[in-house]
Amino acid sequence: MERHAPEPTFTLEGWQVLHDFRTLDFPAWMAAPKEERAAAWEELKGLLGAWRALEERGLGLSRVYQVVTKKADLLFLHFREDLDALLEAEEKLNKSRLARFLRPAYGFYSVVELGSQTGPLDPEAPYIKPRLRPRVPEGGYVCFYPMNKRRQGADNWYLLPAKERAELMKAHGETGRKYQGKVLQVISGAQGLDDWEWGVDLFSEDPIQFKKIVYEMRFDEVSARYGEFGPFYVGRHLSPEALARFLEV
Amino acid sequence: MERHAPEPTFTLEGWQVLHDFRTLDFPAWMAAPKEERAAAWEELKGLLGAWRALEERGLGLSRVYQVVTKKADLLFLHFREDLDALLEAEEKLNKSRLARFLRPAYGFYSVVELGSQTGPLDPEAPYIKPRLRPRVPEGGYVCFYPMNKRRQGADNWYLLPAKERAELMKAHGETGRKYQGKVLQVISGAQGLDDWEWGVDLFSEDPIQFKKIVYEMRFDEVSARYGEFGPFYVGRHLSPEALARFLEV
Amino acid sequence: MERHAPEPTFTLEGWQVLHDFRTLDFPAWMAAPKEERAAAWEELKGLLGAWRALEERGLGLSRVYQVVTKKADLLFLHFREDLDALLEAEEKLNKSRLARFLRPAYGFYSVVELGSQTGPLDPEAPYIKPRLRPRVPEGGYVCFYPMNKRRQGADNWYLLPAKERAELMKAHGETGRKYQGKVLQVISGAQGLDDWEWGVDLFSEDPIQFKKIVYEMRFDEVSARYGEFGPFYVGRHLSPEALARFLEV
Amino acid sequence: MERHAPEPTFTLEGWQVLHDFRTLDFPAWMAAPKEERAAAWEELKGLLGAWRALEERGLGLSRVYQVVTKKADLLFLHFREDLDALLEAEEKLNKSRLARFLRPAYGFYSVVELGSQTGPLDPEAPYIKPRLRPRVPEGGYVCFYPMNKRRQGADNWYLLPAKERAELMKAHGETGRKYQGKVLQVISGAQGLDDWEWGVDLFSEDPIQFKKIVYEMRFDEVSARYGEFGPFYVGRHLSPEALARFLEV
Amino acid sequence: MERHAPEPTFTLEGWQVLHDFRTLDFPAWMAAPKEERAAAWEELKGLLGAWRALEERGLGLSRVYQVVTKKADLLFLHFREDLDALLEAEEKLNKSRLARFLRPAYGFYSVVELGSQTGPLDPEAPYIKPRLRPRVPEGGYVCFYPMNKRRQGADNWYLLPAKERAELMKAHGETGRKYQGKVLQVISGAQGLDDWEWGVDLFSEDPIQFKKIVYEMRFDEVSARYGEFGPFYVGRHLSPEALARFLEV
Repeated sequence: MERHAPEPTFTLEGWQVLHDFRTLDFPAWMAAPKEERAAAWEELKGLLGAWRALEERGLGLSRVYQVVTKKADLLFLHFREDLDALLEAEEKLNKSRLARFLRPAYGFYSVVELGSQTGPLDPEAPYIKPRLRPRVPEGGYVCFYPMNKRRQGADNWYLLPAKERAELMKAHGETGRKYQGKVLQVISGAQGLDDWEWGVDLFSEDPIQFKKIVYEMRFDEVSARYGEFGPFYVGRHLSPEALARFLEV
Repeated sequence: MERHAPEPTFTLEGWQVLHDFRTLDFPAWMAAPKEERAAAWEELKGLLGAWRALEERGLGLSRVYQVVTKKADLLFLHFREDLDALLEAEEKLNKSRLARFLRPAYGFYSVVELGSQTGPLDPEAPYIKPRLRPRVPEGGYVCFYPMNKRRQGADNWYLLPAKERAELMKAHGETGRKYQGKVLQVISGAQGLDDWEWGVDLFSEDPIQFKKIVYEMRFDEVSARYGEFGPFYVGRHLSPEALARFLEV
Repeated sequence: MERHAPEPTFTLEGWQVLHDFRTLDFPAWMAAPKEERAAAWEELKGLLGAWRALEERGLGLSRVYQVVTKKADLLFLHFREDLDALLEAEEKLNKSRLARFLRPAYGFYSVVELGSQTGPLDPEAPYIKPRLRPRVPEGGYVCFYPMNKRRQGADNWYLLPAKERAELMKAHGETGRKYQGKVLQVISGAQGLDDWEWGVDLFSEDPIQFKKIVYEMRFDEVSARYGEFGPFYVGRHLSPEALARFLEV
Repeated sequence: MERHAPEPTFTLEGWQVLHDFRTLDFPAWMAAPKEERAAAWEELKGLLGAWRALEERGLGLSRVYQVVTKKADLLFLHFREDLDALLEAEEKLNKSRLARFLRPAYGFYSVVELGSQTGPLDPEAPYIKPRLRPRVPEGGYVCFYPMNKRRQGADNWYLLPAKERAELMKAHGETGRKYQGKVLQVISGAQGLDDWEWGVDLFSEDPIQFKKIVYEMRFDEVSARYGEFGPFYVGRHLSPEALARFLEV
Repeated sequence: MERHAPEPTFTLEGWQVLHDFRTLDFPAWMAAPKEERAAAWEELKGLLGAWRALEERGLGLSRVYQVVTKKADLLFLHFREDLDALLEAEEKLNKSRLARFLRPAYGFYSVVELGSQTGPLDPEAPYIKPRLRPRVPEGGYVCFYPMNKRRQGADNWYLLPAKERAELMKAHGETGRKYQGKVLQVISGAQGLDDWEWGVDLFSEDPIQFKKIVYEMRFDEVSARYGEFGPFYVGRHLSPEALARFLEV
């Protein structure tokens, strides 16, 4: 029996990420006394302010989105230096007054990742450092989905030689580059951290671009043959003012 | 290793679509005070009227259906110019008085799509423009289901040459044409937008036609070999008067 | 590339069918005031009477079953001339007093179907007409399950030549005929109507016959190679008197 | 096309079986007034007594187990002469006072089965009769799991010649015999009765034996190639006294 | 037909393990009267103390973790000498005051296992004994996931010769050894005990190590070809003081 010699991917890790999707109990929220809603909003503004301060100190960032379809109503998206900071962000929301009206919808824990199939990356290289701590826009739309690389019969990503994986990823990258300026991609790894191997966030000013890039990429061999995709969530960014309007406070 | 050269489908996008399925808490609704039901209905009539006005301005359309089996009781189907307008429609319902008696059942976000395997379509062509903004009948029955194209072992749609995909779709189109005048089909793409790659809406005066067209099409090679189908929802159109009768207001 | 020429099955459609499975909130029901239970029973008797009248006019029939295991407590099984009549039956139950104590468990919408792989059937033939409007016994036991025909790799039902499908179905029919007099089979098609392609109802005086026929049929090539089976529900027929005893009214 | 000649398994059926798994709403139960708990216990003792009387008359038997992990808290396991008796046992529990604190967790309906691949069994043979009405120990531990025989590509149990199935089962039986005196196996068939084809109950004084026998058997070709396994439930037998302690009555 | 001669794995079993994941109803907990929270905490401290005493007597150990994402809030991890002791630990929590605010999230029952493909292990060997009763750190982070070995078409772990399994496991062990000092692995077997064949616990001071070891191991042939992975749970150890802070008591 000839054994396969494993050729793992080389990776760099950056910010840690928590996708915290919630539904809002609209009837209860709309029926709550005005004072209770005002108090919940004051407290939430405090959280938004603390997240803003943290972003200014370069320690991470948080964004809030209004999600389409009832699989979630709100996405609280957090990037942080470590898991402790993510746990704190989640716990603060869990303990907030607004949490009385929120229900868990979906969550995903991952770490921003840059990967190379052929050799180690230099974490200090100027084009790499900012990608490990991505500047997520304050506006526009987000598309999030988790994914795996397939390991099924003849289509087993992890048994491919590194050279072949590199070729496939290169072609895939070229498709991605066509959307430069239209779609920002942030890839995070979740091996050992959550139920899928990666999380993908796309950010754009136009949600139709999510459809176009995902559809076009599906014809790349790396997606067609090896991609397995989880649920897709699409949302619109909510500034503090837009969030106040959404909550009618 | 010989690499597959990707040949993506050419697409045009039209109206954006939200399928918003809900169940009705019948016991609570039937037990609610008459005034509360009347107030909920007045508010809902306001929404129906606004949707009507929007349709008259050509900015979209909305339809309501009574769904069979308890996987949903009502379908609110919205076609709009953009995601913001869909989010507004969803939010308005979430915040309405009737929402106290509604529970989320299923939702699907997609975009009306026309596709070509062989070359770009002309969005201004007279036979294309109206299909991007479909005139959904006010009456009859709807059948909705999401679907994927298979990527499994030897049956991988996205690795087929465009020419082969075109042949398969052409044969499929011929089956569809047999039902012209009996069934209206609206295809919407959901790559990057929701958990399945497409949504299919069939509209007919006779629900038996849904069975006949879907069964016959399943023998087309494109469905037999490459089609993967999600849940099916069937409903009857409710005019404002029929909806009032359904709600007993 | 040689294209497969589709050879669809020829079908006749009869009564439309709704399987409406519910669980009963026993603690709430047992604790309800005697008057409330009496009123709910009076109303339900009215429904049973209307269903009886409808059956006498040949417009359909309804049966009630007590289901084993907690995946459901009751099955309301309706055969009707069209979807509108099924929607009405479902809506009447949803709006009834008893519905305060019922929870949805599972539902299935389909149409009684007779199929032929080789040529059209004559809907007026004397041996066909009654099978499209089956006389479901008032007594005994029911077994319901939904199913698909497999489309997987080399085992793809819809790519088989009609002649081969006919042979396979013929052998299957022979197994079924061994149970004549012991088990009544009603097949309904759900392509385009529900999440599985068919529903199967077996009726017998002895539930062990459900095990025997299903087990024996599984060795038929058509089941062994092409059958995919959903959940199985088994129940005992409840006459109005037995239903009253079950409800303790 | 050469057709496969079906060679069904020969079976004998014995007692019918209901696995009725429930969770206990501990907070509500612990907070219930002492009198309510006492009354619930008195009523439950009545059921236990009736089950005992029935066992003494040879008409079946019932056992109660405390299940590990929160997928269930209690298993009510019933063997009876027919489905009516099982429905009665389930209904009695559903209508009992304790049921206010129970929630359905999982259920399985099946029939004790002895099978032979090569020829009919003699139901009156002395070594067969008691196995159709198994004496389940009053003590120790239970392991329950449902299972299917695989029908997938080249691994299709139902297309194997009976002779080959017989060889595979014989080797499997030899593994089982190594555990004689340590583990009692009861196999029940659920074709046509529930969502899996068989239920397996293992009884032992030591739960580590469940791990050892299941792990060892998985290397038998019949399991390795053809076994598909559902959820596993493990519990400890509760005598009436132990049940009283568990319920703190 | 040439039969495969089964070559089971040789195993030793150590402590039995219960993973008891719960969510906390934060709104109810935060709104509970101060005295109720204090009483719940006093009682919980009693449990923590009893677990500590049991650890000092070498009879097992328990740890509590704060879990990221809302799939769980808390993990109660118990190692014990036998199932009775695990059932007692679970029951004590179920009956505690805190349980009014806890909901079941996930559970897993397994037994610490050391395996050898080639021959029996000596349970008294000095390097083996402590691994059967692992010293789980009081601090840092945990990653838990269940897994199966694949039995699919050509990739069937249980049909491999023991020698080949041994080679694959040896290479896998070498990858694991690279993480010595960084990650502690505890493998427990769940064949016959729970829905997956194994549970894996990783303990580390740095959760990024979970990602690194799991990702690197996925390229080992044994994982790439034969590993099937369930949900992943990551948490931070909570000392009694940290748990008090988390509960704000």
